[in-house]
Amino acid sequence: MKKHNFYAGPSILPEFTYQETIKAIENFAGTGLSIMSISHRSKEFDATINEAQSMFKKLLNVPDGYSVLFLGGGASMQFAMIPYNLLAKKAFFLETGTWSKKAVKEAKLFGEVEVVSSADKNFSYIPTDFTIPTDADYFHITTNNTIAGTEIRKDFDSPIPLVADMSSDILSRPVDVSKYGMIYGGAQKNLGPAGVTFVIIKDEILGKVDRQIPTMLNYKTHIDKNSMFNTPPAMNIFATLQTLKWIEQKGGVEVLEKMNIEKATILYDAIDESKFFESNIKNAEDRSLMNITFVMKEEYKELEADFLKFATENGMIGVKGHRSVGGFRASTYNALPKESVEALVKVMKEFESKH
Amino acid sequence: MKKHNFYAGPSILPEFTYQETIKAIENFAGTGLSIMSISHRSKEFDATINEAQSMFKKLLNVPDGYSVLFLGGGASMQFAMIPYNLLAKKAFFLETGTWSKKAVKEAKLFGEVEVVSSADKNFSYIPTDFTIPTDADYFHITTNNTIAGTEIRKDFDSPIPLVADMSSDILSRPVDVSKYGMIYGGAQKNLGPAGVTFVIIKDEILGKVDRQIPTMLNYKTHIDKNSMFNTPPAMNIFATLQTLKWIEQKGGVEVLEKMNIEKATILYDAIDESKFFESNIKNAEDRSLMNITFVMKEEYKELEADFLKFATENGMIGVKGHRSVGGFRASTYNALPKESVEALVKVMKEFESKH
Repeated sequence: MKKHNFYAGPSILPEFTYQETIKAIENFAGTGLSIMSISHRSKEFDATINEAQSMFKKLLNVPDGYSVLFLGGGASMQFAMIPYNLLAKKAFFLETGTWSKKAVKEAKLFGEVEVVSSADKNFSYIPTDFTIPTDADYFHITTNNTIAGTEIRKDFDSPIPLVADMSSDILSRPVDVSKYGMIYGGAQKNLGPAGVTFVIIKDEILGKVDRQIPTMLNYKTHIDKNSMFNTPPAMNIFATLQTLKWIEQKGGVEVLEKMNIEKATILYDAIDESKFFESNIKNAEDRSLMNITFVMKEEYKELEADFLKFATENGMIGVKGHRSVGGFRASTYNALPKESVEALVKVMKEFESKH
Repeated sequence: MKKHNFYAGPSILPEFTYQETIKAIENFAGTGLSIMSISHRSKEFDATINEAQSMFKKLLNVPDGYSVLFLGGGASMQFAMIPYNLLAKKAFFLETGTWSKKAVKEAKLFGEVEVVSSADKNFSYIPTDFTIPTDADYFHITTNNTIAGTEIRKDFDSPIPLVADMSSDILSRPVDVSKYGMIYGGAQKNLGPAGVTFVIIKDEILGKVDRQIPTMLNYKTHIDKNSMFNTPPAMNIFATLQTLKWIEQKGGVEVLEKMNIEKATILYDAIDESKFFESNIKNAEDRSLMNITFVMKEEYKELEADFLKFATENGMIGVKGHRSVGGFRASTYNALPKESVEALVKVMKEFESKH
């Protein structure tokens, strides 16, 4: 039976990424050696990392004055690296879910933190009633909240550097990079296998803190050495480049955005029209196009386990909601085909007609 | 023409590792999904990381009371993490090459550092005339020096926790882990593709510093969460596990040590008997079994570029020495077959007979 991969991350990637990586494990760039086993100082790998950077810049239309880095350690490491490099006195956070909460926690080790949160309603909305403090060093947001199922799909006008964790919606739509001081995230949703972290950073926001920064935690180290101060996760970067190429082949982020809206609309419509299911996210514009969360209506709660079993038996993988919100979650990243969403909707309707 | 991969890292891995990783990109553990795209919370990946840990413990005979971790960021990140977690007042370093020098630099950000160095002779020997200070918090060594071509192949008796960077000789020979507080390294020599770092740590050496440690930089975080506080580099860990399985199939580290000695002996003998080449490492017991460095004798220096060209034309890849020492370097890690060493020796002799 065909499996449909709705995992929230690591998650589905284009078949192109899998196949090109397989080829490169056998023979990378005509070297006769494996991508796992080639020096990162070789001219062939140098071409790979440079192409990944330039492709990223092209697809997101990154202006001059920004660097694109590929680092190890995951977005969670960035939660500490960001305040290490940027927090002189105070940071301002929009706390919209588990991930921003973790980012807030790390920032507090480095200075004062001002927080506007939607924790009061279990992160089921994006706060709108706030003013960005001009005395803060930066304004941190998490654009897509994988667990709560909300997303910020607009580029804020911020008087201070805007820092965005886009781990789970990078390259799913166009963004105006010029409005950001930094955009970062783990690769393992829309980009590549877990183990590489992208950072797009405006060079001029650096150098404003006094503290001593360990070499590997200092963005300047990686900017100066083109992400090769130490051995980078070479195979992971190679795979990421393949996904970037696939995005270009598809027609770029504008095309992907249309596809993502189409997929999400099919699923949200099915949820809204359903007898059994409902969305926890009442404000439609806050709903994520990447992680579509839904629950059983109160009166049908006892059917939750039955549905999960039925869906799994029908090839729907990874649709269990995160334990902190319960219910279900279908992750509909770039590489998820529309057919998978349609298959899920079919399973939901079949389940309804049976009960 | 057959290529022989002498790169110092990323470097040759067993064919088994390549092929099993390829299979898992197609279909991981019978899930029908790719190892790149499966949740790290899935039971299948959980089994993978647990097996990698237990296999590591078995192959190195790790005693109770130690944790095995798989982290991101590389050994260079450990250079900062170690003092963050262990340096309360003072650390003692044996500085035997470029890598320990970098480790010293990071430790200095956190406290006092006492160093015994072989920098006076460009790291061409391992110092023996020193006393380990009992008032230091730990004693840091780099067991194998990839650039200088030296190696410490004995387990020190240390009155303070012994911390060893074994990036480039892990699992190349048996070690008495009970004599170490911590053993760590990047995977990209003897273990797997770049992007995952192993840490073997004695739990009781932790918790002795007062400073606040960012979550991701705290070993306790990763011990408590079994290396899955955040998304680990899943594919890299999977590939590492395949190499561990290959080591077991070969008969374990004792068998590999014999093979490594045999390979190194062939090459060092050829160097010592040569008209053109010589080793910079005069003390035979300091010579690395993993990175065999050699130079042209002074009177033949002008032939250096010629030999490099000749070797490359004959399929020898990555034999250029690091720019800081010049000459040549053949890395003879676990997965390098004896045939490759024999092929190199043949090329050296051919070159000699031609000039």
